[in-house]
Formats: sequence, structure tokens, C-alpha cells
Amino acid sequence: MENSVDIGMSPLRPQNYLFDCELKTNKDNHFKVDNDENDHQLSLGLVNLAASTKDELNTIEARAVNYEDSPIKITLATLKMSVQAAVFLEHFEITPLVVLLLKSSMRM
Amino acid sequence: MENSVDIGMSPLRPQNYLFDCELKTNKDNHFKVDNDENDHQLSLGLVNLAASTKDELNTIEARAVNYEDSPIKITLATLKMSVQAAVFLEHFEITPLVVLLLKSSMRM
Amino acid sequence: MENSVDIGMSPLRPQNYLFDCELKTNKDNHFKVDNDENDHQLSLGLVNLAASTKDELNTIEARAVNYEDSPIKITLATLKMSVQAAVFLEHFEITPLVVLLLKSSMRM
Amino acid sequence: MENSVDIGMSPLRPQNYLFDCELKTNKDNHFKVDNDENDHQLSLGLVNLAASTKDELNTIEARAVNYEDSPIKITLATLKMSVQAAVFLEHFEITPLVVLLLKSSMRM
Amino acid sequence: MENSVDIGMSPLRPQNYLFDCELKTNKDNHFKVDNDENDHQLSLGLVNLAASTKDELNTIEARAVNYEDSPIKITLATLKMSVQAAVFLEHFEITPLVVLLLKSSMRM
Repeated sequence: MENSVDIGMSPLRPQNYLFDCELKTNKDNHFKVDNDENDHQLSLGLVNLAASTKDELNTIEARAVNYEDSPIKITLATLKMSVQAAVFLEHFEITPLVVLLLKSSMRM
Repeated sequence: MENSVDIGMSPLRPQNYLFDCELKTNKDNHFKVDNDENDHQLSLGLVNLAASTKDELNTIEARAVNYEDSPIKITLATLKMSVQAAVFLEHFEITPLVVLLLKSSMRM
Repeated sequence: MENSVDIGMSPLRPQNYLFDCELKTNKDNHFKVDNDENDHQLSLGLVNLAASTKDELNTIEARAVNYEDSPIKITLATLKMSVQAAVFLEHFEITPLVVLLLKSSMRM
Repeated sequence: MENSVDIGMSPLRPQNYLFDCELKTNKDNHFKVDNDENDHQLSLGLVNLAASTKDELNTIEARAVNYEDSPIKITLATLKMSVQAAVFLEHFEITPLVVLLLKSSMRM
Repeated sequence: MENSVDIGMSPLRPQNYLFDCELKTNKDNHFKVDNDENDHQLSLGLVNLAASTKDELNTIEARAVNYEDSPIKITLATLKMSVQAAVFLEHFEITPLVVLLLKSSMRM
């Protein structure tokens, strides 16, 4: 499972940097940003199943906070090799800290 | 069935907050907003079937009002695990109060 | 077959209103607008097959006019329950008067 | 195979006109524009297989020019009735003269 | 496997030029830009399987650099003729130098 992201930093106009990230089942990926005076946004782009993925249901979950700073869990994608192997999230933005997590399941 | 939404509030420029929402069959989810001087918009993002969903037809419906303040029903997504498990609504905006409702059906 | 649309009216900045519309096979749905001094646009959003739809090919057609005011026919979506049950047209805009028409076919 | 397009003309702000176009296999469709002082863009919108299309692979190709005015060929869509019957190109813009061509193939 | 891209150059406002690119398995395609005073962006548009593609898993990979100028690999698309034959990346932008690479696999 691979995931490409870019974090935009905004001094005067936002600057975009490309990130890549390969998720392994049930292993967290933490997106932290430097504690500087800039605002940072995690902009989620392409989510693709890796060619080696088994034909089971793969759920990509993001953990962030809501307007009350309470933790929330959002399902970013539900992919299965024989049904849909990729999704383009069109730069869905989440304010860091964000944790990305891949979950696999034999159902379906 | 999970659903992520963000409500934008606009003092000078709109502020976006991330929401999550898990729909259960035939149980309403009401999105109300505080009765303050701000305009609020419900911006619908990602709709994903939960991994535990049965392989039946799932319809996600929104209930809101039209330009005459008459109630209207809109189908936001029609998902089935073996056909399409997720949809990105690209921040489809609806003015609250909005009710979200999941309906399941054995057909198909 | 359900279809959600919003017509934007533009006094100073465009105002958007949500519409819903359920199409029946071979029955026209006419979108007319008031003959006032505003410009109106029909902005097509979500097209979903209703849960009760048979597993046949469903074509949603729009009838409008081109730059010479000649009538044109545009296929907005081609949906079949077991292949693709929904499409998001991302606010595809057509100037009224627009006629929406659902056609069903046993082929495929 | 039907294809809807709109050509934007820009005197002060761009004006959009809706076009429709039905492609037949291996028959060119040429989009020419008037030789006036306006800039024209062909903005590709919806591509749908017609209900009468056989269940074979359909490729929609555009022929245009690159930055050196050399001819280039771009595949706009690869559709098959039982896999994916429609695609929304989100107003993919090409500078005329553009030639659209439908190719069918029994493979797949 | 065909891939259409356009590189935007920005003297005052960005200029867009259309590119085409046919990828062959395990053969690199390098997108270099002239070393002039302009900023260049590679904007990825349509990715389509060619009609002659075998029904195996095709992965399109981009190699670029991240914010530390370290090399990164991003999966742009995961396509298989009988599941999904095309994807629209909606002008996903990457700063050159970019290398595009097609990988095929019999799995799935």
C-alpha cells in the first residue's frame, strides 16, 4: 500500500512538497511538522494498492482531531485489488498531526 | 458505513473543521450548527463502506431543504462492497440542518 | 433514478440552491427558470441509480441548446447497477432550459 | 459513443458553449474554430458509451499539437461496457485544431 | 500504456503545453526541462492502458525528489484491463526532473 502526500507550507503563498509513504498493515505512520511559525497542511493525493497486495479488503484510516481537539478517525479509502485498486483523493487536506493506518481484512 | 464531513465557518475567511460520522442502517444522523452569527456549510467529503458491511446495496441519503424551504431528499451515494466500496464527493456542500441516513437493501 | 441539481442565481455573487429530481424511464423532467433579470445555471451534481432499479443499462440524457441555439442531446451518465451505480458530475453546468431524460435498455 | 464538449471563447471573460459529438468507429471528428481574434479552447467533459455499443474495448483518441507544433496523439478514455461505461474528463482543455477518433477492438 | 502530460511554464501567467508519452514496461521516461529562468511543472493528466495491454496488473510509478531533495517513488496509478483501464489524475503536479516508469506484474 503506497500513499503519496504533500505538505503545503505558507509563508506568503503556500509551498508544496511531495511526500511518499508506504503503509504496512496495522503499523502507524505519523505525520508531524516542525514547530515553526508556519501553518502546515497535509494534502492527501494518490492512494494505490501495491502490486504485492493480497486480494482482501484494505482500509486506509486517518486519525486527526476535530474542532474541539477531540480525536477522530476517518476512513480515507476502502480498496480491494479485484474491485478498485486506486483512488485519487484530490488533495484532501488535514491539519497535522495526522496518523495514517492500513487495515486489512479477509471479508468480502 | 463511515462518512467524513467538514463544516466551514466563515468569520472573514471560511474555517474548515473535520468531522467524522458513522452511519448505522435506518438511524438518522443530524448535523445541527450553533445559532451564532456565522454561516455554516456542511461539506461532504469521503464516503466509505465499513469493512464489516454486508455485500448488499447501501444508499446514503441526505435530507435538507430547497430554495422554498421545502424538504428534499438527495441520494449521495449508492455503494456495494463488490462493485464500488467508496466515493469521494469532493466537498459537496449542503446548508444545515442536514440529516444523513443509511439504507440497506438485499437487491442487486 | 435520482438526480440532485442546484441552480445558481447571481445578483452580486451567485447563490446556490439545492434541487432533487427523480427520473422515471422515458418521462421528461423540464428545468425552467423564472423570467427575471438574473442569470441561471443548472449545475448537475450527483446521479445515483435508485435501489429499485433493474440491472439494465440506464442512460441519462440532457437536452439543451448549443451556441447557435440549435437543440443538442448530451449523455450525462451511463449506469448499470452491477457495474457502476453512481456518478458525480462535479457541478457540470448547463444553461436552462434543460430537459433531463432517463432511458433504459436491456442490452449489456 | 457520445462525447460532450464546450468551447470557451474569451473576449473579456471566457464564454462557454455546449457542444455534442457522436463518434463512430474510425471516423474523424474535427473541431475547428473560426479564425477570429479570440482564443478558443476545447474543453472535454463527459464521455459515455452509447447504449448500442458492443462489449469490446473502445479507445477515444485526440490528435492535437505539442509545444513545437508537432502532432501528438493522446488517449482520452479507454471504455468497455462491462467494466466502465463512462468517464468525466473534468473539462480537460486542448487548444484546437483537435481531431477526435474512436477506435474499437475485440481484445479484452 | 499511454500517458498524457502538460508542462506549465510561467513567465507572467503560466502557459500550458500538451505532451504525450507512451510507456513501455521497465523502460524509463525522463521529463527534463530547459535550464531557463522559468519555473516548470509537470502536470499529470490522463493515464490509459493501451488496447494491446495484457490483462495483468500495471503500475505507473513516478520518481522525483521530496523537500530535502532526496529521491522518492510515488505510485501514480494501478490499472488492470478487466478492473479499471484508465484514471484521470486531474493535473497532479510534480516539479521536474521526473522519471515515469511502467511496471507489469502477473499477480491478481
